[in-house]
Amino acid sequence: MEVTIVGAGLVGCLLACYLARRGHHVTLYERRPDPRERGPDRGRSINLAISQRGIDALRRLGLDGKVLHAALPMAGRMMHAPDGALTFQPYSADRSQAINSIGRADLNRELLEAASAQPGVEVRFGCRLTGLDERTGRLRFESGEEAAAGVVIGADGAHSAVRARLQQLPGVSFSQEYLDYGYKELSIPAGNGEFVMDPGALHIWPRGRSMMIALPNPDRSFTCTLFWPHDTLAALDTPQRIRAYFAEHYPDAFGLMPDLVADYRGNPVGHLVTMRCSPWHVRAGDAVVGLVGDAAHAIVPFYGQGANCGFEDCVELDRCLDEAGDDFPRALELFERRKADTDVIARLALDNFVEMRDKVGSRLFLAGKRVEHALERALPGYVSRYELVSFSTTPYSRVERRVAWQRRIVGAAGAALVALVFAARRGRGLVRGPEGD
Amino acid sequence: MEVTIVGAGLVGCLLACYLARRGHHVTLYERRPDPRERGPDRGRSINLAISQRGIDALRRLGLDGKVLHAALPMAGRMMHAPDGALTFQPYSADRSQAINSIGRADLNRELLEAASAQPGVEVRFGCRLTGLDERTGRLRFESGEEAAAGVVIGADGAHSAVRARLQQLPGVSFSQEYLDYGYKELSIPAGNGEFVMDPGALHIWPRGRSMMIALPNPDRSFTCTLFWPHDTLAALDTPQRIRAYFAEHYPDAFGLMPDLVADYRGNPVGHLVTMRCSPWHVRAGDAVVGLVGDAAHAIVPFYGQGANCGFEDCVELDRCLDEAGDDFPRALELFERRKADTDVIARLALDNFVEMRDKVGSRLFLAGKRVEHALERALPGYVSRYELVSFSTTPYSRVERRVAWQRRIVGAAGAALVALVFAARRGRGLVRGPEGD
Repeated sequence: MEVTIVGAGLVGCLLACYLARRGHHVTLYERRPDPRERGPDRGRSINLAISQRGIDALRRLGLDGKVLHAALPMAGRMMHAPDGALTFQPYSADRSQAINSIGRADLNRELLEAASAQPGVEVRFGCRLTGLDERTGRLRFESGEEAAAGVVIGADGAHSAVRARLQQLPGVSFSQEYLDYGYKELSIPAGNGEFVMDPGALHIWPRGRSMMIALPNPDRSFTCTLFWPHDTLAALDTPQRIRAYFAEHYPDAFGLMPDLVADYRGNPVGHLVTMRCSPWHVRAGDAVVGLVGDAAHAIVPFYGQGANCGFEDCVELDRCLDEAGDDFPRALELFERRKADTDVIARLALDNFVEMRDKVGSRLFLAGKRVEHALERALPGYVSRYELVSFSTTPYSRVERRVAWQRRIVGAAGAALVALVFAARRGRGLVRGPEGD
Repeated sequence: MEVTIVGAGLVGCLLACYLARRGHHVTLYERRPDPRERGPDRGRSINLAISQRGIDALRRLGLDGKVLHAALPMAGRMMHAPDGALTFQPYSADRSQAINSIGRADLNRELLEAASAQPGVEVRFGCRLTGLDERTGRLRFESGEEAAAGVVIGADGAHSAVRARLQQLPGVSFSQEYLDYGYKELSIPAGNGEFVMDPGALHIWPRGRSMMIALPNPDRSFTCTLFWPHDTLAALDTPQRIRAYFAEHYPDAFGLMPDLVADYRGNPVGHLVTMRCSPWHVRAGDAVVGLVGDAAHAIVPFYGQGANCGFEDCVELDRCLDEAGDDFPRALELFERRKADTDVIARLALDNFVEMRDKVGSRLFLAGKRVEHALERALPGYVSRYELVSFSTTPYSRVERRVAWQRRIVGAAGAALVALVFAARRGRGLVRGPEGD
């Protein structure tokens, strides 16, 4: 088949590899210039945390080795209290599992190379989509260039131009939901050529209503991201205010940020949005148009699953093509079932923001996590939600069913334990039964 | 102030009247030609049911008399069972209250006349908005014409072009939610110059998963609307199938529809959508852009409140302008509080579809309505939700609080009554107490 993919970002490139392996001819249209010929975009969503779902999707194409070679494993969260005290919380009970910090630009270049190297894949840069006729698969680009394909797949991100067209069709439900928070990137450079904090952790400064995180880079710097209410971001409007605020709320990081004021004033404020769409594909006339990745289901970054989920979309669509014998309209129809999973991770990502910015700073929460890890060691088969999401490829919706089931089991076991203790004490005369009242 | 209103539909025209009364200069841009110079649009959302909120908004401008003169009051629902049996259910306990059937085109012409008659109001037809710069209030139309205003208000309906621009701005949350149902209009003509059914009722043929309704017109015809699942609408693809289906499921109406097959095949299928947006206004640079009516909060038609709610928007915005001393940015900020009310009616309208198509056909439901009307007669101050929505101007969100409060009171009274009866019977030895078990 002739397949057009709009967007040569992470998901578009990986999907092109999967489709080329099936023998399809793929043309990738990307609105930006070739990233291999330009510098990286500073200040916007630099780091990703690749975990099991992403690794699995890369491994099926033999791309995992090269990608992970450049990545930095983070085995847990390092919480920074306002007084500078550090607490490490491992992601897994045996501390063996890690999520992997990687730069978006590096990963994109790697996947672009992989896609370009496939026979049957062509990549066209500088092509911004301005028109799409879903009945004919005809595409029009800003340059005046036109194209047509029986199969058009939008992998063009949260603000997808392909989805913008589908949204105009009656029957296509859609929502975009912004948080009242913005994000801004800052930097902690290397000191004397070395990391100035532990590079084996994802660093979090939980501050109740807001937070900062930091992920390590191969050049031994850290990329920090503030997730703050818009009004807080806007309130720091002078170098004095910026320095005073960081000195008060992030004292240990403040000393490690020589470029704080320039970064704060120079880097843009990003927005945090959840996009939902249904259906993800429209079949009309001779053409079928579908969506994958953020174009179908953009989520907030707080579970580190945006790219992982998009990569898993490629695996799932590949599976649907198997099932449909490479009939794309049928495969895209089967692919709609994945919405049950992406709806779950969208919700978990929103919930995790509250956990990261607020709860991880609480002793009770950390004690709960220790109990959970103890349960994992004690009960074979008990696995935390975080591990099921990050270190397995269990579908997200099954993760939620399993977590609910585990809670019931543990709850029942706990109740039985309490009853046993009660019975034992009563047997020893320590508790008087109701007949004695 | 110079105010631009995009859309000269029902809400745009009424708002122009309200703003002109305050002394503002208003230009109304409408994409369609002047409806006074063209015939009515057949087959799409012909009839409205104007009730208290709409009447109140018209009355404040002295427009109620002329509008209601042309309307037909409907004092209740007439249910048509599959065997042709009729059941009348009044909307109010004393049968004195009615909603008013009126043609959208007639009402629009009336309001257009009223707006055009105001000094300071100009109406421009054939102007389709193609560009809007929210920072300058500059508008561009398909014709090439340009305009600018410090205040731009989108009253351009569910598929608002003004909102389409606001949706592109970061921070503007939005959703469009389609039902899996379509609607299609049919007709029951007059017979020998007379109504062939009772014109004092809104007729409903509840059929579980689907329904038909009919509203009377001044020419003594009825406009019928099917609300059917899309697959049912599509399945009747031959004259034989259409006739057979209606003969089976709507036998009494079938005999009154000589043009059934032509209407069914000729009229388009409409879609049912709920649109939500937040915020409704954006202030940027020197300009402010806001939304009212369906552009801000399109709802499904099942509570008969779409136009009433849009008219009430005008009253509320007028009130906000009072409060803000005609400072539009401030008034539009105050107007955001109305979202609490429009969110409620959006939900009630969705819920009422289930009630109309399914529950009104059940004896238990009708018995419940009779009990409710008995309560209204017996308890001073008890008013049903339907009456509060349709026959009062109590804000929708307060309707919901009051309904919840009434339910608690009646529940508590009911429980007390049961306890009293129980105690009385037990006192007479008819019930044995637990001590006798």
